Amino acid sequence: MNSPQYIAAEVLSALRERRPLVLCLTNNVVQNITANMLLATGGVPVMLNHSGEINDLLHSCANGMLVNVGTLSEQQAQIMHAAVNDARSAGVPWVLDPVAVGLLRYRTDVCRELLQTPPTMIRGNASEIIALAGAEGALCRGVESMAESAAAVNAAQALARRTGATVLVTGETDYATDGTTTYACRNGAELMTRVTGVGCAMGALATACLAAAPTPLQAAVATAAILGLAGERAAAKSPFPGTFAAHLLDELALLTPDDIAKYTRIDSEPSQD
Amino acid sequence: MNSPQYIAAEVLSALRERRPLVLCLTNNVVQNITANMLLATGGVPVMLNHSGEINDLLHSCANGMLVNVGTLSEQQAQIMHAAVNDARSAGVPWVLDPVAVGLLRYRTDVCRELLQTPPTMIRGNASEIIALAGAEGALCRGVESMAESAAAVNAAQALARRTGATVLVTGETDYATDGTTTYACRNGAELMTRVTGVGCAMGALATACLAAAPTPLQAAVATAAILGLAGERAAAKSPFPGTFAAHLLDELALLTPDDIAKYTRIDSEPSQD
Amino acid sequence: MNSPQYIAAEVLSALRERRPLVLCLTNNVVQNITANMLLATGGVPVMLNHSGEINDLLHSCANGMLVNVGTLSEQQAQIMHAAVNDARSAGVPWVLDPVAVGLLRYRTDVCRELLQTPPTMIRGNASEIIALAGAEGALCRGVESMAESAAAVNAAQALARRTGATVLVTGETDYATDGTTTYACRNGAELMTRVTGVGCAMGALATACLAAAPTPLQAAVATAAILGLAGERAAAKSPFPGTFAAHLLDELALLTPDDIAKYTRIDSEPSQD
Repeated sequence: MNSPQYIAAEVLSALRERRPLVLCLTNNVVQNITANMLLATGGVPVMLNHSGEINDLLHSCANGMLVNVGTLSEQQAQIMHAAVNDARSAGVPWVLDPVAVGLLRYRTDVCRELLQTPPTMIRGNASEIIALAGAEGALCRGVESMAESAAAVNAAQALARRTGATVLVTGETDYATDGTTTYACRNGAELMTRVTGVGCAMGALATACLAAAPTPLQAAVATAAILGLAGERAAAKSPFPGTFAAHLLDELALLTPDDIAKYTRIDSEPSQD
Repeated sequence: MNSPQYIAAEVLSALRERRPLVLCLTNNVVQNITANMLLATGGVPVMLNHSGEINDLLHSCANGMLVNVGTLSEQQAQIMHAAVNDARSAGVPWVLDPVAVGLLRYRTDVCRELLQTPPTMIRGNASEIIALAGAEGALCRGVESMAESAAAVNAAQALARRTGATVLVTGETDYATDGTTTYACRNGAELMTRVTGVGCAMGALATACLAAAPTPLQAAVATAAILGLAGERAAAKSPFPGTFAAHLLDELALLTPDDIAKYTRIDSEPSQD
Repeated sequence: MNSPQYIAAEVLSALRERRPLVLCLTNNVVQNITANMLLATGGVPVMLNHSGEINDLLHSCANGMLVNVGTLSEQQAQIMHAAVNDARSAGVPWVLDPVAVGLLRYRTDVCRELLQTPPTMIRGNASEIIALAGAEGALCRGVESMAESAAAVNAAQALARRTGATVLVTGETDYATDGTTTYACRNGAELMTRVTGVGCAMGALATACLAAAPTPLQAAVATAAILGLAGERAAAKSPFPGTFAAHLLDELALLTPDDIAKYTRIDSEPSQD
């Protein structure tokens, strides 16, 4: 069988060729960097705020949809409920990014309802995945995770089995699991947590990878590999957040499938059950 | 008669002197780059979300208004309908940017209604201009245009004659037409399409130029010249999207009227009717 | 007594240690740079759009709240009214940034109502502070201030005494006053006015400093010192707005308490009454 590094490289190659159109229903803070990270990598971003238009796009040319609840309003929650149903009826894969779930009750309730229409992938930090999987934690740093990603692997596997979604837990090490098979992706840079929206944009990148990968698990691994390696290289060019952010976009555009195959560190994890 | 290059140079000079205040009713993704591109060039951006405040500003100190439907909601459509009527009664020129019209029905209907209060200028890519001019196309790349701008010149001229608006079709070559006279502006860089919001911010720059130019056609030509030359120079400094975006703002600030007069490539187009 | 430079240095040191969580209710244009400036300096940004979530966060882990009316809608005004009451009941300090008050009637009325629940600090340019203090001016440059900050010192002192809030008037020189004692902070760079959102993000930085300083007046002085010195250093690295903006974030991250103690220019102002 091919190595996960090789598969991730193939996903980047397919993404660049197919240029998937990613419908992003995301928070106000990160719309710009989300669009720019998608464009730099090779996807095509579309942001919409009208249910009729979302339905039209899902039934015409959207290749995937991201739902990120970072700055959720009641109006946006209604749009998202309709959108996930439309995505299902249109057969469009979608990714849930449960930002700050577990910390804030309203979005926690909304995300649990959204899960009734199972997403193709869920991307979150350890705290969010643990909260979404059912446990409650006293999490008090907003969108920052207090838990190490390794602490969420069991919760991620359980969440994947319960929902059928592939789960991508991000942190210093990223874990991708479909409930049966789990990979650990060890690229990345601490500086990525000092630029607003890198994590949220990762959800959009995951959506683009879904449209280019044979399986959601391979899409999740490719997402972690692509962003992790680009982040590492950008951090090598600048150790400070402002210039780092510009280099991150540059490195996403510069990255080749060959780089992914050679320089990513991905391991298969032993089952923890 | 003065060359279009010389006239565009004069527009930049007048823009820097007058510092037009541009009211931007625009989409959520691009508000920041829109404001920064205006500031870098010499305009003053104001973004508002309240009809009463929009009316106040239009009747006090706004020099122009941009209406961009990129992330249109029903609430925003209502605000925009009121705003174009207020702009007319206040005598403030306005620019319509019909993002993704032709692809998405709701905004297509809204833009056709907005055209009942004719804008001073319409800026769009080829697909959008063709759609707004009446033809329907199977357009499926969201805000990216699938058609070459040259393919939209006839539609642009017809749209200009029907609405009285100057039309600026943007692409590898930009075309500016008032329905009678048409110019082709050949500056620019492919990289400008890889940074979210450069096209949308061009609509705001066009609005600023309207407040500084003798005629809307000259404003459209100046817009294409200023952004095209700045984009070219930024691309010469960085071939990658993150650092390119920072250089684009720098180059807009650095650009002199003399640069515009010397280094822009603008041709008068023969009539195609 | 310790010098204001030394106290500002201590505030930066405490901010880095405590990493205050700042709830930002702010305008659409500046959310990204606001979050990035907070993160670069050492704070943790959270943006929310739902009253229930805002209340939850204020009663759990928010260390301060910013209210910025830059793109105010009626819906947002309702959210803000509830939020300032929730902040009071939770004992969370809050900062009002009255963007363009005096120019636009709706937000002027809203801000005067918000003042019924006194903020801990008010940050504005000269025109805004003069308008909020009661005088009406014919202000016509939107978010740009037409008045010199020195012209607003009396109004700032009166506003501070009337509301009990510390007032930070920003401009070429920044003035911080609690109504009795006034400091002038003379760091900064003109280029900071050419990047959208630096002023608005200053309000968020002030909120973070409130959570790290012994008194609101010291927080206001520290805010002006930190941003002014970082701006000065960024301008020394790049005289153009795009690359300057990236350097500004870098310099905020690089700045040490020692730099603040050594290189800021802060004077105590004689009473002007």
